[in-house]
Amino acid sequence: MAPKKGLLERLDEGAVIGDGGFVFALEKRGYVKAGPWTPEATVEHPEAVRQLHREFLRAGADVMQAFTFYASDDKLSNRGNESSKKYTCAAINEAACRLAREVADEGDALVAGGLSQTPTYLSGMSKQDTQKEFQKQVDVFVQHQVDFLIAEYFEHIEEMEWAIEVCVKSGLPVVASMCIGPEGDLHGVSAGECGVRMAKAGAHVVGINCHFDPFVTLEGLKKMKVALDAAGIKVHLIAQPLAFHTPDAQKQGFIDLPEFPFGLEPRICTRWDMHRYAREAYDLGVRYIGGCCGFEAYHIRAVAEELAKERGKLPEGSQKHEQWAGGLKMHTKPWVRARAGRKYWENLKPASGRPFSSSMSKPDNWGVTAGDSSLKQKTAATSEEEINELRQKVVNGH
Amino acid sequence: MAPKKGLLERLDEGAVIGDGGFVFALEKRGYVKAGPWTPEATVEHPEAVRQLHREFLRAGADVMQAFTFYASDDKLSNRGNESSKKYTCAAINEAACRLAREVADEGDALVAGGLSQTPTYLSGMSKQDTQKEFQKQVDVFVQHQVDFLIAEYFEHIEEMEWAIEVCVKSGLPVVASMCIGPEGDLHGVSAGECGVRMAKAGAHVVGINCHFDPFVTLEGLKKMKVALDAAGIKVHLIAQPLAFHTPDAQKQGFIDLPEFPFGLEPRICTRWDMHRYAREAYDLGVRYIGGCCGFEAYHIRAVAEELAKERGKLPEGSQKHEQWAGGLKMHTKPWVRARAGRKYWENLKPASGRPFSSSMSKPDNWGVTAGDSSLKQKTAATSEEEINELRQKVVNGH
Amino acid sequence: MAPKKGLLERLDEGAVIGDGGFVFALEKRGYVKAGPWTPEATVEHPEAVRQLHREFLRAGADVMQAFTFYASDDKLSNRGNESSKKYTCAAINEAACRLAREVADEGDALVAGGLSQTPTYLSGMSKQDTQKEFQKQVDVFVQHQVDFLIAEYFEHIEEMEWAIEVCVKSGLPVVASMCIGPEGDLHGVSAGECGVRMAKAGAHVVGINCHFDPFVTLEGLKKMKVALDAAGIKVHLIAQPLAFHTPDAQKQGFIDLPEFPFGLEPRICTRWDMHRYAREAYDLGVRYIGGCCGFEAYHIRAVAEELAKERGKLPEGSQKHEQWAGGLKMHTKPWVRARAGRKYWENLKPASGRPFSSSMSKPDNWGVTAGDSSLKQKTAATSEEEINELRQKVVNGH
Amino acid sequence: MAPKKGLLERLDEGAVIGDGGFVFALEKRGYVKAGPWTPEATVEHPEAVRQLHREFLRAGADVMQAFTFYASDDKLSNRGNESSKKYTCAAINEAACRLAREVADEGDALVAGGLSQTPTYLSGMSKQDTQKEFQKQVDVFVQHQVDFLIAEYFEHIEEMEWAIEVCVKSGLPVVASMCIGPEGDLHGVSAGECGVRMAKAGAHVVGINCHFDPFVTLEGLKKMKVALDAAGIKVHLIAQPLAFHTPDAQKQGFIDLPEFPFGLEPRICTRWDMHRYAREAYDLGVRYIGGCCGFEAYHIRAVAEELAKERGKLPEGSQKHEQWAGGLKMHTKPWVRARAGRKYWENLKPASGRPFSSSMSKPDNWGVTAGDSSLKQKTAATSEEEINELRQKVVNGH
Repeated sequence: MAPKKGLLERLDEGAVIGDGGFVFALEKRGYVKAGPWTPEATVEHPEAVRQLHREFLRAGADVMQAFTFYASDDKLSNRGNESSKKYTCAAINEAACRLAREVADEGDALVAGGLSQTPTYLSGMSKQDTQKEFQKQVDVFVQHQVDFLIAEYFEHIEEMEWAIEVCVKSGLPVVASMCIGPEGDLHGVSAGECGVRMAKAGAHVVGINCHFDPFVTLEGLKKMKVALDAAGIKVHLIAQPLAFHTPDAQKQGFIDLPEFPFGLEPRICTRWDMHRYAREAYDLGVRYIGGCCGFEAYHIRAVAEELAKERGKLPEGSQKHEQWAGGLKMHTKPWVRARAGRKYWENLKPASGRPFSSSMSKPDNWGVTAGDSSLKQKTAATSEEEINELRQKVVNGH
Repeated sequence: MAPKKGLLERLDEGAVIGDGGFVFALEKRGYVKAGPWTPEATVEHPEAVRQLHREFLRAGADVMQAFTFYASDDKLSNRGNESSKKYTCAAINEAACRLAREVADEGDALVAGGLSQTPTYLSGMSKQDTQKEFQKQVDVFVQHQVDFLIAEYFEHIEEMEWAIEVCVKSGLPVVASMCIGPEGDLHGVSAGECGVRMAKAGAHVVGINCHFDPFVTLEGLKKMKVALDAAGIKVHLIAQPLAFHTPDAQKQGFIDLPEFPFGLEPRICTRWDMHRYAREAYDLGVRYIGGCCGFEAYHIRAVAEELAKERGKLPEGSQKHEQWAGGLKMHTKPWVRARAGRKYWENLKPASGRPFSSSMSKPDNWGVTAGDSSLKQKTAATSEEEINELRQKVVNGH
Repeated sequence: MAPKKGLLERLDEGAVIGDGGFVFALEKRGYVKAGPWTPEATVEHPEAVRQLHREFLRAGADVMQAFTFYASDDKLSNRGNESSKKYTCAAINEAACRLAREVADEGDALVAGGLSQTPTYLSGMSKQDTQKEFQKQVDVFVQHQVDFLIAEYFEHIEEMEWAIEVCVKSGLPVVASMCIGPEGDLHGVSAGECGVRMAKAGAHVVGINCHFDPFVTLEGLKKMKVALDAAGIKVHLIAQPLAFHTPDAQKQGFIDLPEFPFGLEPRICTRWDMHRYAREAYDLGVRYIGGCCGFEAYHIRAVAEELAKERGKLPEGSQKHEQWAGGLKMHTKPWVRARAGRKYWENLKPASGRPFSSSMSKPDNWGVTAGDSSLKQKTAATSEEEINELRQKVVNGH
Repeated sequence: MAPKKGLLERLDEGAVIGDGGFVFALEKRGYVKAGPWTPEATVEHPEAVRQLHREFLRAGADVMQAFTFYASDDKLSNRGNESSKKYTCAAINEAACRLAREVADEGDALVAGGLSQTPTYLSGMSKQDTQKEFQKQVDVFVQHQVDFLIAEYFEHIEEMEWAIEVCVKSGLPVVASMCIGPEGDLHGVSAGECGVRMAKAGAHVVGINCHFDPFVTLEGLKKMKVALDAAGIKVHLIAQPLAFHTPDAQKQGFIDLPEFPFGLEPRICTRWDMHRYAREAYDLGVRYIGGCCGFEAYHIRAVAEELAKERGKLPEGSQKHEQWAGGLKMHTKPWVRARAGRKYWENLKPASGRPFSSSMSKPDNWGVTAGDSSLKQKTAATSEEEINELRQKVVNGH
């Protein structure tokens, strides 16, 4: 069998479709704990992780991201998380690589190993300490022959540069993606400058993931694009946004919304939102188009269906999904059959069924960032007293 | 190993937790086609069906419903559905039974075989024809030694009585559940009378599934309870509602809402809605408490967690979910840690993130039911011309 | 000049149009104090009261209700209201009658004197005490030759019967209108029975005013109509609802909504709501069609315009209002001219411009009524301590 | 009696409170026709105009703006408006001046004569033609000894400069106020530059009126302030915004919202919104603080109450309005008395009572401005054919 084409080659040829977020999907399925959000499921329940990979593959994803989100040693032991007592960081990362490879090879997909921001950095520790955490994961990725690396979910360009530095040394293609919006990073660096700095640090693909909905994310990418063009830098762009509507989120994104993480349901995007997202991303010049938290297989399939013409193919999963609601022609009720068409769904503004809810929320916003004492991380569990203190801060308007 | 306790014995002892809906969950994962909604995935992708069963088992479900929804011969060949060309009805039903049994035996769960309403009845054909469809499925269920039968998703009490009649002859416990709301069946029979007639037809457990949200469903169940009490009938009650908010649905339920089936996202219930549902259902005396379309594992887990005290146990899935958001104590951001408590989530009214959407919709409502010519079902696919005619009806206000 | 036709003669011939509410309109204009809501403006600022009468006359009202709402002695001195120290009850009522007559005679309108529920009754005092309050006002009305009496804004049918008894003795036509919804009075008497009892007590016209929006009010009137028909009683019906949308109000109406009285703006009905109200009221057989709190001249004009064909005339005010937005044909911007038509406005669902607001509220509902100690009225002002106690009750969920 | 202090002297000393909009208030009362919006009521119904002036005076307004909005000859005869056939422009303007003076002298208020943008300019005619229209009105104002001039409701800075040029020649203080938002004028001139150009043209007070809600208006004023500071120009600032929430309006303001002008009710600001507006405006340095369309007396009173401390006085109308809902202490129901306080009303997010409405609208936006043929004005009425053409444009998405 011929070797698979590499990421950069594929990006040069056209759109590469990413997968969706694992922590939110597996939290709902019962395999990930909200709060720590760590990926020990790769060891504990490989069948569940494998199945989710398969769903994204079937939906059209060209990349299987090994489920290594927050799988750094410091995170696995933060604030009472007991994962590190049961499993080594290496074991979790290795299992993740094997599962991703197994499913990737059921199709033509690539495997990516991922790094994300660390409690070490957030607690104000040194570059050396932070990079040591990264290096441990990268070593596993290299050993397991992933096809490329993704440094994603970074709120500070400084930490991102440190991560890219480690990644670049591996010799693999490097994708760098920050969880920022149009307002830029948490230290006040603009989105445009973040883009330029990621590219200058050596990333081959730069962009944005998580924290904001597809349309806010694309606003941020527009700023990156303008800045990269102005700097004369040629790199590919990546978008992997939330599948939650966040028009009301501020600088820190959906985490500050009062609904995070257990009341986000009314914000979930429809497949039609994803058609629009895919089209707008593609038209903007983004070539790596995937998703993050909230994205399920049907969202990725919608991206693949929107770009079917450009890509010359439909995903396997479309065998169970006729374009633009065509399957409704088989419905028993005539008025549902009447909904079998694009115009109907493009124009629908879906109601929430929640008459006591508003459409927007005021985000919590304590305005603190890396370096602030309330962000110091620790190994011990949070005490009831500490929680009460935090609640009191909320009552007092922080 | 001691044989498992039967359904009726369990219900006499306390709450039995059902599973969630398969067609919606597997549609999103890419294995079921919206429109026909038939379950050929049991043959095509057993690993996907098995995994979903496991998620519900892990979430606390005491019942694995074999995935046989709409798996009657007449439905598999309706309006251009090609499933019947590839697989026999028997094969699909048999595979469903095997998968359910396999996972049920990984725990202490029971297996149920399910019947649902038929195109045959909807097209105005005879009792004999309709029962023939039911018999074919029941034969498979008996042969595969399911633990009990569920006749569910019936809009007309008449067809339901025919189904119960077939089920009762099997000698297995029979659960009967109609997809109606407080207004009763589509022929104008009240919810209360539907309850009484199901019991008189021989069902051991009667109630309501699908079509309405948990709280509207419980309104309907209250009416059944009053009528059953008035008639001096003692049966158990079952509730398996939608996980979509439907305060605006009319008699025919969520199918008539303009958002059905591809724009229902903003209506998805949170886990906290399900805590409230479980408590209200239990307090009303409902003992079989499960879910239908939209219910995912985390919704069922919330039911199990709410009833943990009554049941003396937490589900395995709760190892990844501390009660009432306790896991947030491990979050890196202090203001998210402040959300680790019951009061916060009980009081939250989650915003939709959709400022151009309303909270309620006007349902489509053509006011036709079994017998009307526009409801005649057929084998041929719906033509583009027919769809255009239907759309014109919509424009003209039907 | 020929004498004016009387109320009952007019009602037999067709629709009689009432005026709108004075207390809310004059509160916004600066002449009535929210809280006590008493009408001393008739003495203090007759020009403002006169102008408001004129606006309603011009809008098509056939009745000028003397501004005597809550003008009973016991109310004028309740809870620190100082009106009774400055003016006698008689003076306020007399001035109200004179102003109403003056403007009524600028057109063909009739004058009505009005009674409303009393603190005396609410505090649990005797029938004799309560009727004494009514008699004082009726004496003034008779002396000033009003054309008919309206007993309106009663929450309890018992007090209403006492009021009607007093009114009937005057020999004038009596209109009786309770501030109830479809759920009936605060002592649990159904809306239907309230209607029957008002008629049996001698009222010539019975119905509902205030507390609910036009459409909820008509639901209540439907129940009255059914009960009156069943009892074989022939009387005319009156509707004088709020001009605020109240789909979420419970038994006690808009007073319990959190927005009452200073945040009701987003609930204000449009003129197109009033077209629909007038049509539905007329079709139901209601012949006295007016408004209460929130109704301004343009709302009454919309009622008159909707019924122009039935009445054979347009109001004078329509000289400044072309039917169904026709005046927009003169607008400078072409896309506003495109809105000059009925279909546009009938279909518009106006946005609130308030993305942080919901569409419905949970009413305060302390479930107390006449007789409860917290409803005892008194002359002294409410102390800060008492207010704090009340607030504490709110925090504790009452 | 000592002569009244002039406008500029008052502004130097502290806040000057403007009045509210006349066309919207008098349209609802039945004296102005929506569409042409011309002020012939000054001749036809002086008592109605006088009463509205009195309400604003009583509410705390320091200025009586003569009701001369759109009272230019070309506007009075535009598109079938017959006002110019009945009355001369001079007669309407003269009556307006007399009414404003009469009421102003019942207190300590000043009289302002107002100019606004002209069909002449919108139709692309010359500076000379446009200024001729302005001069006719200014002549009347000078003759009637108004205290100052206001050129307001201009969408184009060019026409505004022409108006200021005419005003300045009168020797009276000149206030200049454009109906723009933060995005600037319709020809693309920024808000900041508009402010600078108005000042350079000779205006003593510059700012923004109409078209946007108080908070969007203040965003625009911030931009003006920054530009004026940068240019080293010292002038006073004026804000006279809408009393309708318009977070969703685009460059052309509320006219483009689908609710304009007959469905704006759910957007009406509460008195508490106005407290916030007054405070934010004052803190920004705005000293002329009034209102435009939608402002009624109680809104202006709220401005005066918020600034009571700074101004050392409460308006006369506050005799009927205890600060921060204090009057509710006199309410009969205890849970309404519990609402007598500032915190309650500041935190209330009022519901709309409209579950089928959204919170935001998509504005119509044809993107045409002065010079475009569809904006050519004419004397003849708009024909039914022309309206149908416009509607077709809407259907076709323009």
